[in-house]
Amino acid sequence: MSPLTITSSQNPRIKNLIRLRDKRHRDRQKRFLIEGYRENKRALARGFVPEELFFCPEWFLGENEKDLLAEVEERGGTLFSVPKHIFAKISYRDRPDGLLGVGAQWEAALSSICLPENPLVLVVESIEKPGNLGTLLRAADAAGVDALIVGDPVTDIFNPNVVRASTGVLFSMPVAVCSTEEAIAFCQSKELTTVATTPAAETLYTDADLSGRIAIVMGSEQYGLTERWLEAANLPVRIPMAGQADSLNVAMATVITLFEAVRQRG
Amino acid sequence: MSPLTITSSQNPRIKNLIRLRDKRHRDRQKRFLIEGYRENKRALARGFVPEELFFCPEWFLGENEKDLLAEVEERGGTLFSVPKHIFAKISYRDRPDGLLGVGAQWEAALSSICLPENPLVLVVESIEKPGNLGTLLRAADAAGVDALIVGDPVTDIFNPNVVRASTGVLFSMPVAVCSTEEAIAFCQSKELTTVATTPAAETLYTDADLSGRIAIVMGSEQYGLTERWLEAANLPVRIPMAGQADSLNVAMATVITLFEAVRQRG
Repeated sequence: MSPLTITSSQNPRIKNLIRLRDKRHRDRQKRFLIEGYRENKRALARGFVPEELFFCPEWFLGENEKDLLAEVEERGGTLFSVPKHIFAKISYRDRPDGLLGVGAQWEAALSSICLPENPLVLVVESIEKPGNLGTLLRAADAAGVDALIVGDPVTDIFNPNVVRASTGVLFSMPVAVCSTEEAIAFCQSKELTTVATTPAAETLYTDADLSGRIAIVMGSEQYGLTERWLEAANLPVRIPMAGQADSLNVAMATVITLFEAVRQRG
Repeated sequence: MSPLTITSSQNPRIKNLIRLRDKRHRDRQKRFLIEGYRENKRALARGFVPEELFFCPEWFLGENEKDLLAEVEERGGTLFSVPKHIFAKISYRDRPDGLLGVGAQWEAALSSICLPENPLVLVVESIEKPGNLGTLLRAADAAGVDALIVGDPVTDIFNPNVVRASTGVLFSMPVAVCSTEEAIAFCQSKELTTVATTPAAETLYTDADLSGRIAIVMGSEQYGLTERWLEAANLPVRIPMAGQADSLNVAMATVITLFEAVRQRG
């Protein structure tokens, strides 16, 4: 390995890592941050190579980091060795693990989504918190969802906290970002039954047929689904709630509905 | 209303609010913090009156705070008016809403748990993150769980982040804190079928009968269930996982299992 060495926090590459936490800079540069061993490992496993990987052995938690560095270099990424105190600054974690990658964003276009014969799709609308979007990616992964459609995005999928909370699922799950209208048109063109969870629905989610070509549609944390989606959805369902009205957050409501679909699909 | 006015951040009551973030001080004083309008409102609704309520109208987000203050005072709590900059210090939130209560801890004893005829109980073991314990309380509330048993506690139920993440469910859900051995003995004495989710189980959680006297048992974030619980559990079940091994966190696995029980119980 032949890493370059950075010694000053004034180095423009170091300054740029801080800038990439900001959506404006991410959008302009079309790049994003991938922090952590697991995240970079999963990126590589999916054929995604960080262009640059900043590392600091004094923060390493395990012993496999060197193999990962070697793999990144071999596959065309550039390595930068960074002193401990500077790595603490570029990391956005409480406990850094000594690895911070920078990679190129990809087009998350609807046209790139290929669905199998009997697809299970998750559509989310205007999710606000990056941590929730990451958690939804994990839930979708666990349930074997075929694609995630991020409609009317408020947080961008390349936010460092989406990458982190998704534990790298961002690199394996087919994701498309689009407007609500495009998401509705996509579901219609693919003949998906759109299942919208809303407290106003009469049908229990467990009484609905979720075994076919299905898109489960979830609204934002604060406002739930928009009128537009409630109008457009084919199959409004509700989750029975025993306690306080707000006891299920969007991630929990999503995972409950997804795993009922998994159950029915056998 | 006749609140007392605090003007100095050196006031011993103010200093004590900071101290109560720390478990040692909470344990010693047998008191804890209840921050937020919703949390204090739900405490009152369940008959729990904060001994002291610190407030700052400049941080209020709504218009009902005055009624809440009046109710606390009427029911025996003492009000303290605090200037804006001091409230910012005593709050542990990013966006304070101008209300911070202090209340007495209660004994969360197993002996206080009364179960109905066909109970659904949730047992958690060694949960580490206060936010997760709070989320589990919300999930239990949504599923109509009759009691939450916190076995072998790592985080205490009076941690400010448990109160917050539970959105006040801590005040309504019957909760007991005990050792793993006591939790096992309790489940046996109440003739509960203990359902332990573990990847090693053969039975799918959806194929298990969750309609009777059930305790769903969940392990810690990092290590899952202990050997002791895996041995003691009557009914090991697994949740099918399509994606990466760690895509379901403990809160999601819990809510999936709880809502399958809800479905079966009709």
